[in-house]
Amino acid sequence: MITIALDTMGADFSPHNEVAGAIEVVKESKGRFKVLLVGKKESLNAEIKYQQDFPTESIEVVDAQEVIEMGDEPVHAIREKRNSSIVVGLQAVKQKQADAFVSAGNTGAVMSGGTLELGRIFGVSRPMIGSQFPRSAGGFTLVFDVGATVDAKPHWLKEYGIMGSIYAKNIFGITNPTVALLSVGEEKSKGNELVLEAAKLLEATDINFIGNVEGRDILNGKCDVILCDGYTGNVILKFAESVLPSLRTRIKKYSEKSFVHKIKAGITASVLRSSLKDFDYQEYGGVPLLGVNGVVIIGHGSSTPRAIRTMLLRAEEMVKKDMVATIAKAFEKVQEKIIN
Amino acid sequence: MITIALDTMGADFSPHNEVAGAIEVVKESKGRFKVLLVGKKESLNAEIKYQQDFPTESIEVVDAQEVIEMGDEPVHAIREKRNSSIVVGLQAVKQKQADAFVSAGNTGAVMSGGTLELGRIFGVSRPMIGSQFPRSAGGFTLVFDVGATVDAKPHWLKEYGIMGSIYAKNIFGITNPTVALLSVGEEKSKGNELVLEAAKLLEATDINFIGNVEGRDILNGKCDVILCDGYTGNVILKFAESVLPSLRTRIKKYSEKSFVHKIKAGITASVLRSSLKDFDYQEYGGVPLLGVNGVVIIGHGSSTPRAIRTMLLRAEEMVKKDMVATIAKAFEKVQEKIIN
Repeated sequence: MITIALDTMGADFSPHNEVAGAIEVVKESKGRFKVLLVGKKESLNAEIKYQQDFPTESIEVVDAQEVIEMGDEPVHAIREKRNSSIVVGLQAVKQKQADAFVSAGNTGAVMSGGTLELGRIFGVSRPMIGSQFPRSAGGFTLVFDVGATVDAKPHWLKEYGIMGSIYAKNIFGITNPTVALLSVGEEKSKGNELVLEAAKLLEATDINFIGNVEGRDILNGKCDVILCDGYTGNVILKFAESVLPSLRTRIKKYSEKSFVHKIKAGITASVLRSSLKDFDYQEYGGVPLLGVNGVVIIGHGSSTPRAIRTMLLRAEEMVKKDMVATIAKAFEKVQEKIIN
Repeated sequence: MITIALDTMGADFSPHNEVAGAIEVVKESKGRFKVLLVGKKESLNAEIKYQQDFPTESIEVVDAQEVIEMGDEPVHAIREKRNSSIVVGLQAVKQKQADAFVSAGNTGAVMSGGTLELGRIFGVSRPMIGSQFPRSAGGFTLVFDVGATVDAKPHWLKEYGIMGSIYAKNIFGITNPTVALLSVGEEKSKGNELVLEAAKLLEATDINFIGNVEGRDILNGKCDVILCDGYTGNVILKFAESVLPSLRTRIKKYSEKSFVHKIKAGITASVLRSSLKDFDYQEYGGVPLLGVNGVVIIGHGSSTPRAIRTMLLRAEEMVKKDMVATIAKAFEKVQEKIIN
């Protein structure tokens, strides 16, 4: 049985959505796993009361009286709020009371906390966050790093490539995943200093590195894994997330012109909903923090119960596939001396 | 009367689309301007033969027998192909035979050529390219640099801010345009080293610098001008350009399910066409290369006659607004010593 520590505080709809998502997943899983609800026990017990017909032995409340708020400065919050749900949840993983930690709270705090509390896998310079972008023709492109560290050094990108390749293979079942650097042109000569240096290092690894791809190839699906510094990845991720809301605003405006416009806009909305299902983050839940000594999944502050459910299932998968040990093993093989 | 040198070689539909766009614009302009069609005179004369009822005195063929192809290495091509349409067109601007240069050819070659042939405005470290992103609520957000130089230094971003502010004010008519740095969070402490350093320099200028914005704010329209290094800008621009084609692929797939799906997909396509008109690059044509001693507009390789027309009109506007002199004047004011 797998045990997952779930942060139930500090997200937009805490603790309601977390509890609802957890109950949903333990109902389905039929004893496959247990969820530790980490947060203020009074709120959690009150919330659980509303829930019915779930296997009570699969849910356990772990008290954590402090809350790291969305606006808190991450590193400071992790150091000061030692009784927060994030620190308590991560400590449960460290103490082997849980196999994974899942949170929809302050992303920066979960990243910093993940690194500070669990430590990095030996040989990993910087942990990274991955995000999955839906391809036009179906399936996903994985992009690393989308914001764990804003600046990057060439050898970090090499490490991102090794970890990303393992993730694509183990979690997405892709044999020999193709890995590329995000750049301004496909030619080997195109790129900023970081990309040009990283390419040389990636070529020397045994992963399936195919060179450069461009911004358009994220959705076009030219490769399985795309690497970039966390600043660029974060900017693209947030831009991408703003596309559908922007589209909705425009369609709403269109619908206001007349009754016929309204009907046509309604049809459009339904077609888009159906054809863009995989753009919906609820379907794929959170993103993994890779490179730390433990399974950590980070979700949107506005995660719905369905998104929480997906995050818990993703965490379960990562535990089952033994992601941490697999990455650790790969880094043992990396012979070059890594300079921090 | 304004004279514009138009590169008619090396784009995807050269010289047909260039000639058609030029003819269209001189017909409308009623003697307001003249277009120099720069390229192989045999092809151009053959092409012009098909065109009817245009003021022949507004069109002049300027022979240039060499072609810089899309795949040519920019700097090398500019140095070697001295009789190419790009070099000849830029030289026409330098020699004051033309007021502006417009090209849908090899973007890198136009950028390098613009800088090498025309030179930089005194005080400008690096020219930049701007792009306009349509906002959800209407209007545009201008992003600089989208790929003139991949790497950037903090003081280049400061210069981008000064030039971008002038462009927004003069071409888009925005009083006291708001300028921001693209970053991973709004707080002053958020950003990579480049952003954090550039912020200090931008604060010391007299432009309306408002701090950081995030990837989502490009479409949300939180400010008028967004600054970033050319690598990041290029990646976002190409990502953004891939969104609509990706959407089309998905809607097409949806339409193939049944006859009813096909009808609904057709309605969706028409609603999107109507509500996303300003996403269409044909409507806003090319992007300006700012910071060089002359007006240069760069367009898509696949520019339609309509896009060429828009590019010529944009070039006219930049000449009329005296953009080069306005930027030069602003840089005279910049007191700090600029280290290249």
